[in-house]
Amino acid sequence: MRTRVTDMFGIELPIFAFSHCRDVVAAVSRAGGMGVLGALYFTPEELETELAWIDEHVDGRPYGVDVVMPASYEGAHFAPDELVGRLRSMIPDGHRAFVENLLTRHGVPPLSADADAGKVLLGWTDATARPQVEVALRHPIALLANALGPPPADIVELAHAHGVKVAALASTPRHALKQVEVGVDVVVAQGTEAGGHTGEISTMVLIPQVVDAVDVPVLAAGGIGNGRQMAAGLALGAEGVWTGSLWLTVEEADTPELARRRILAATSRDTVRSRSWTGKPARLLRNEWTQAWESEESPGTLPMPLQFMLVSDALRRIGRSDAAELATFPAGQIIGVLNQVRSAKDVVYGLVEEYAEAMERLGRLTAD
Amino acid sequence: MRTRVTDMFGIELPIFAFSHCRDVVAAVSRAGGMGVLGALYFTPEELETELAWIDEHVDGRPYGVDVVMPASYEGAHFAPDELVGRLRSMIPDGHRAFVENLLTRHGVPPLSADADAGKVLLGWTDATARPQVEVALRHPIALLANALGPPPADIVELAHAHGVKVAALASTPRHALKQVEVGVDVVVAQGTEAGGHTGEISTMVLIPQVVDAVDVPVLAAGGIGNGRQMAAGLALGAEGVWTGSLWLTVEEADTPELARRRILAATSRDTVRSRSWTGKPARLLRNEWTQAWESEESPGTLPMPLQFMLVSDALRRIGRSDAAELATFPAGQIIGVLNQVRSAKDVVYGLVEEYAEAMERLGRLTAD
Repeated sequence: MRTRVTDMFGIELPIFAFSHCRDVVAAVSRAGGMGVLGALYFTPEELETELAWIDEHVDGRPYGVDVVMPASYEGAHFAPDELVGRLRSMIPDGHRAFVENLLTRHGVPPLSADADAGKVLLGWTDATARPQVEVALRHPIALLANALGPPPADIVELAHAHGVKVAALASTPRHALKQVEVGVDVVVAQGTEAGGHTGEISTMVLIPQVVDAVDVPVLAAGGIGNGRQMAAGLALGAEGVWTGSLWLTVEEADTPELARRRILAATSRDTVRSRSWTGKPARLLRNEWTQAWESEESPGTLPMPLQFMLVSDALRRIGRSDAAELATFPAGQIIGVLNQVRSAKDVVYGLVEEYAEAMERLGRLTAD
Repeated sequence: MRTRVTDMFGIELPIFAFSHCRDVVAAVSRAGGMGVLGALYFTPEELETELAWIDEHVDGRPYGVDVVMPASYEGAHFAPDELVGRLRSMIPDGHRAFVENLLTRHGVPPLSADADAGKVLLGWTDATARPQVEVALRHPIALLANALGPPPADIVELAHAHGVKVAALASTPRHALKQVEVGVDVVVAQGTEAGGHTGEISTMVLIPQVVDAVDVPVLAAGGIGNGRQMAAGLALGAEGVWTGSLWLTVEEADTPELARRRILAATSRDTVRSRSWTGKPARLLRNEWTQAWESEESPGTLPMPLQFMLVSDALRRIGRSDAAELATFPAGQIIGVLNQVRSAKDVVYGLVEEYAEAMERLGRLTAD
């Protein structure tokens, strides 16, 4: 297969795989696609470790790094050294009490002597994402992606100066145009069915609009879990596909076992767009956590990054407890068809095989 | 083009066009697709007139009729002759007052001596849809479609006894299986981006699941507005496409002028899934009507068919007033790309031409 993005990156397959797990990133790149590591959860030091590992395991194939530099968030004007403290003071006591009551009701024990406790801000802001970008650019990455809107123009310039292409996620044609204005090389047009932060327009409706709006190559994201969906994405005008939820259940993924089981059992109706994770709408597994935030007792969610600061320790506690009914994570609608554990390589090859079958069938339909 | 549905119906193009307007139905069938008349708003006598007109104008090409026989609704156990009265008494005064206040605030005058006032139930129930089916089966229709779940088994048998194929809309694989169990010949798998009653799963995610779940041919519905989307639908495994919103703006459509202008100006973000029309979730143009039902003063919506009974006269009053900001109608996300008025025939030919272009491009991508 050959498209503008396979040419741009020198890859065999126009398949981009977003994952927080280095093993998945390396495996997909080795299989001919492009793994993209989500940097969000890592401190700059941790990210350095992850990328060094990938460098050793990717056999010289290209890979990317994804950061979160939201175009807007609370406290953007605070100085970096007082950011966490100032933001923390903005969280109302009523919200803290709501979260604590919810956890108590579900029997979730407190964190004790947890090394990660207090890692409440992560890479959710420009200030905390920049050090991640600096680390990433010290490695031979091929792509820097921004998950929430157009990246700052100076970051795009910096990446380009390092010979690194820049991608950004868009959920409307207007977003895509803004991204191209700041110099983005690839637009990832993401439909509402995608996991994580997502807009309202479906992939089917969105892709042609973005393709028509911009000159740069477009990747189709949201609802891409098999080769028929990959063929559909390309039929809509995309030059490749961007996948995420698909990799939650592969052998290489470090998805916690309880979460993996829930994903394997879920249908496509078991996700919901909710602000209860970060304050911006994100598609999550629908469960008692997301429902609690929609209930009458809910104090309502806080703006980014306050909501994540409010809930981050709670989510960590839930993850280490038996309260699987509260375990919260981004998940797209395609989790409904993930029902077996396969290797990342098998998933990549399966996509290609099914893509070829879909193309062959299409050819037959049109032959007459 | 040749698929299982073009063979089944002896049509040239696997393009199904749902419309409440007979002119659109006849034009699409004459152009090689299959027009399907939505019977909902017609009394049996009116439907007889519409179908007689289509018979004269369709040049012997096949066409279909779409009715609404919901699997569940309030008052399903009432006798037909007391249905309207019993249902009417179930509407709370507070709901009537909310609607009346909303209209007063927007300066909508009352209806005076309106022939249609009191047409509050329409074909929204089994009892009121059956006479429509009887009328339809007296005409040379090729397809009877049911818009809300599996049609009653006896209706499927009756249609088959008349040599008429039966289709039904499904928004989950489970719905599709139920429909096949009662003998449906074609499943219309409809994604959340579609106008009108719709589920939560996107077209991209839904179609392959339904195709894998059933043996009968599947049509892709929701987000199909151009030939790239048609190619995508077929790539996903569908045998054809089912379109609706696409026909709201064609020359032949009897869409009120104010509504047509709003659709031409809308983006794909200007729709919302709302219960404010019928009591079941339906995608509508997002406006002050849908927002009012989400507001704090809203009494909440009533179950089907009570909600439509509550609001039907109000919507008729709005339609005859200048309060375009309240004009409420089903609209899918593809309205974002409807920005010119074309003939139905041009739209059909445009779909085919763009489909061919998309296929050619796909072939080039895979050639290498």
